[in-house]
Amino acid sequence: MKMAVVGTGVIGNGWIARMLAQGHDVVATDPAEGAEERMREAVDHAWPYVNALGLAEGASKERLTFKKELSEAVKDADFIQENVPEIEELKKTVLKDIDQHSRSDAIIGSSTSGIMPSELQANLQHPERFVVAHPFHPVYILPLVEIVPGKQTSAENVEKAISIYEGMQMSVLHVRHEIEGHIADRLIEAIWRESLHIVNEGIATTEEVDKAFTHGAGLRYAQYGPFLTFHLAGGEGGMRHMLKQFGPALKKPWTKLKAPELTDELYDKVVSGCEHQSNGMTMSELDQNRNEFLIRLYDLVQEYWPKESEKTSEKRSV
Amino acid sequence: MKMAVVGTGVIGNGWIARMLAQGHDVVATDPAEGAEERMREAVDHAWPYVNALGLAEGASKERLTFKKELSEAVKDADFIQENVPEIEELKKTVLKDIDQHSRSDAIIGSSTSGIMPSELQANLQHPERFVVAHPFHPVYILPLVEIVPGKQTSAENVEKAISIYEGMQMSVLHVRHEIEGHIADRLIEAIWRESLHIVNEGIATTEEVDKAFTHGAGLRYAQYGPFLTFHLAGGEGGMRHMLKQFGPALKKPWTKLKAPELTDELYDKVVSGCEHQSNGMTMSELDQNRNEFLIRLYDLVQEYWPKESEKTSEKRSV
Repeated sequence: MKMAVVGTGVIGNGWIARMLAQGHDVVATDPAEGAEERMREAVDHAWPYVNALGLAEGASKERLTFKKELSEAVKDADFIQENVPEIEELKKTVLKDIDQHSRSDAIIGSSTSGIMPSELQANLQHPERFVVAHPFHPVYILPLVEIVPGKQTSAENVEKAISIYEGMQMSVLHVRHEIEGHIADRLIEAIWRESLHIVNEGIATTEEVDKAFTHGAGLRYAQYGPFLTFHLAGGEGGMRHMLKQFGPALKKPWTKLKAPELTDELYDKVVSGCEHQSNGMTMSELDQNRNEFLIRLYDLVQEYWPKESEKTSEKRSV
Repeated sequence: MKMAVVGTGVIGNGWIARMLAQGHDVVATDPAEGAEERMREAVDHAWPYVNALGLAEGASKERLTFKKELSEAVKDADFIQENVPEIEELKKTVLKDIDQHSRSDAIIGSSTSGIMPSELQANLQHPERFVVAHPFHPVYILPLVEIVPGKQTSAENVEKAISIYEGMQMSVLHVRHEIEGHIADRLIEAIWRESLHIVNEGIATTEEVDKAFTHGAGLRYAQYGPFLTFHLAGGEGGMRHMLKQFGPALKKPWTKLKAPELTDELYDKVVSGCEHQSNGMTMSELDQNRNEFLIRLYDLVQEYWPKESEKTSEKRSV
């Protein structure tokens, strides 16, 4: 496939490395001074890692070209990924340019972290081929991409977009309802804001907040998300028991974030959701699966955790 | 060491398995019908895993005894861990009993998820030997324990408590300021509440929320916490650049959680915190360390992620 990348910052360059590794031709464009050189350095930097993950047949850094003009970069592309800075007006202007200069059937994906697709596609001549396709840093390693269609995106093009990203060895999460921040960034922002509050109030240092996460819950979240994790913490009764035991904690000031009311409807959605997604695995199988994973992960991560800084150790003396 | 465990639910039993594995004598107590049998089953269940992590010399399940009476269980202990349900009045009553029947120099740790130590120690005769010691499920595998002294805890006993938990091969986070939910549960609660809002509003299913985390950010958080992760996402400029680029997003509705004002003081705390905790590693070394870890983790976790359920795949058709 002929792919085009508009905007070659950290995310754009991450996409380029992934696309090249999957055996595609890539044309990139960015108006910044020195962008081409930085892009080539970024691809060189990523190459040993994409190589370790496995290159597709014919994959080569030689299949990357850079064009000064956006119109030149996108004109022959089957698929275009936009990654300009997260400023709504700028994204709209650039997307309009892409829309105008590309083939009308080329799929356009935007890496926006939080802007809704219906906003971004509103002024395009061919809005039906536009989706949000939000990746995670480093894009050339992490598999997740959130695909969010806007009101004007056609069902056919959503399917086409999903195939393209799956073809790049990505794990597609089709987000069925538009919302600011999509899904993943809402969770990341919640952690981030709570962390900032803790540091802001002088409760702990950034290093202590990080350790509170990486040596405990952060290990669990590589495998099971917030729901299955709590499902497992409920013992044999699973989420059904968990919500009974920890439901009342939702009223407590354990975060700055206000909780929703735990209605019967929400209770049912969460319990049946967890039972459904267990996908036939018993509590005991889920538990065994988690334990075996955690032991291997713990062994692995000890090689890679940063050393604790001197000052933090000193602080231990009260 | 002679250790006592009061309350043998999921967390209490997790502590018992860890203590036995580290070669200690353990006496446990719990008033519930059938508690001893469930406890022994839980220890049997945990044993292959603690065995895989490595047993201390002399470690044996034979060194576990169960007493009906709390007073009998705690009377000779050097160290006592309390794990009764998260109800403040109940915890206070049980802690008073422990205080009364134990040696006055025995360290008492409470597994409370969110109650502040000064509250829990207020009515003890020997409050100076009390700390919150909050672990993470499964306690026999995850290394983190948050140690939070109350107003009346002596500095000497904080050091003693830290040594005891470090002696159990745990990674101690000394929380220097009391706050509801300590540190880790504030982060976990923020994710949990945001997840509940998303499901409550019909944006996504529990499975979709979990996938949004486990296939992206959840992988990163096993190694680097929220601060170092964003430090790395800022490229060469690190957190300094990141806060400039994404600081304005704090005003956006990307989560239900309101953000603090990004003052110069907070900016400095976060930037210098990240630079400090990098502990001499350059951006490029941090980056390489993360990439090598992620590639090995990705390889590992693919064996252990639950399969996606049928229904979710069907939902993909718009």
